[in-house]
Amino acid sequence: MKPTLSIVKIGGNVIENKQELSEFLTLFSDLKGFKILVHGGGKLATEISRKMGIGSKMVGGRRITDEKGLEVIIMVYAGLTNKNIVAELQSKSCNAIGMSGADGNAIQAHKRPVKDIDYGFAGDVDGVDEGLLPHLLTLGLTPVFCAVTHNGKGQLLNTNADTIASELAIGLCKLYETTLYYCFEKNGVLKDVSDEHSVIKYIDTGTYKDLLEKGIIANGMLPKMTNCFHALSNGVSKVCIGNRSMLAKNEKLYTTISL
Amino acid sequence: MKPTLSIVKIGGNVIENKQELSEFLTLFSDLKGFKILVHGGGKLATEISRKMGIGSKMVGGRRITDEKGLEVIIMVYAGLTNKNIVAELQSKSCNAIGMSGADGNAIQAHKRPVKDIDYGFAGDVDGVDEGLLPHLLTLGLTPVFCAVTHNGKGQLLNTNADTIASELAIGLCKLYETTLYYCFEKNGVLKDVSDEHSVIKYIDTGTYKDLLEKGIIANGMLPKMTNCFHALSNGVSKVCIGNRSMLAKNEKLYTTISL
Repeated sequence: MKPTLSIVKIGGNVIENKQELSEFLTLFSDLKGFKILVHGGGKLATEISRKMGIGSKMVGGRRITDEKGLEVIIMVYAGLTNKNIVAELQSKSCNAIGMSGADGNAIQAHKRPVKDIDYGFAGDVDGVDEGLLPHLLTLGLTPVFCAVTHNGKGQLLNTNADTIASELAIGLCKLYETTLYYCFEKNGVLKDVSDEHSVIKYIDTGTYKDLLEKGIIANGMLPKMTNCFHALSNGVSKVCIGNRSMLAKNEKLYTTISL
Repeated sequence: MKPTLSIVKIGGNVIENKQELSEFLTLFSDLKGFKILVHGGGKLATEISRKMGIGSKMVGGRRITDEKGLEVIIMVYAGLTNKNIVAELQSKSCNAIGMSGADGNAIQAHKRPVKDIDYGFAGDVDGVDEGLLPHLLTLGLTPVFCAVTHNGKGQLLNTNADTIASELAIGLCKLYETTLYYCFEKNGVLKDVSDEHSVIKYIDTGTYKDLLEKGIIANGMLPKMTNCFHALSNGVSKVCIGNRSMLAKNEKLYTTISL
């Protein structure tokens, strides 16, 4: 039987509230088995850009990562956010090690090719080093990934944290019984976005098609669900979506997705 | 016979010039045997503090690390500088892994006690985890340390990079034949600070006493030399001081210090 691995991704809203982050990190520390944390950056990068007088470039609602913007992302994601999470996990007896995709060449990526839009220093993941992470996990370490990768030629790249989490899960699921957790501010995938109690507890390929047709899954939830099914169809055992309490034992209110 | 380990510390002046840094990193990548890089932060933290409207507090010529200042240090040292160095080393086929003292609990420290002056979030090193680093080195990884440690209770601390380098050397010299390199902008310890050719090639306990009495070693060189002799008297084989070319084969113009 393969050992279990939990890959947990936390979004910006969890990170921004110090108290919520701390409660999340306590639950994460208490998780049994091997585990990896992936974090986004949240609004702090925008706030620090503003303080430094760097404007955000947006095209079609999507952020363009120019050189100055990339510098702020590296400072905030790989620096401030990552190291504060690592230090707090250490205080909770979780032997965390903060990483970007460049560290140990863990996640290789390439600059997104320019088609209609040049997204700048945005990285699309090529693959995960499947050798390194099992060694680190066996040493008792808990990798904590920020949403930064590299192209192997010296260029760091801003990469979607949801994608990093699913690619790590796909890369490691041959060796581990892997569960991927997308942890955000909502209770799960909701039937009615205005009703936090309307959590859809189980989604599979069939019900997903139905939810898509009815327009229940739309907008921001769409790329997240695409990541989920991409992971599942590549060997990941289970994907869960919900707020931090889904990591607690006996918590039942969250969405479980399977094929 | 113990395997060899080179611990190389680079100062701010090497980091700030992109071309110089790149040349240094090529020489570092080519070093044989196990190796660890330690880097300071340089003036970038001051520049970014200024852009963010954060003032630097100085008392008696020494910087006081307040909360906002610590945030900038973590962003710049552990984020921007560390990850750019790691990405560039990766491009030179050196499998670097960026670390602060919090990562893997590698370097534990405590907040400097307040006597006459409260230095704020300045950390004095308690010790190095002697178990973790040999594992990472054996995996073929090259740790790259920034000058940030932690107290094990969730607090990150700004720590002198020279001290981090010497403490790492002391912590690892039981297992490795360890040479500590302090790499800065000068050719070595100079007899005459205005003459780059006046490098003192060898210093030992006897000649050091002499150089101190004659006032040849003074000011900024004093704490560096104290670190050197502290390392040597705790089992480190050799300490070298000079510019980046001392890492090149056949280079003879630098200072070697021994007991």
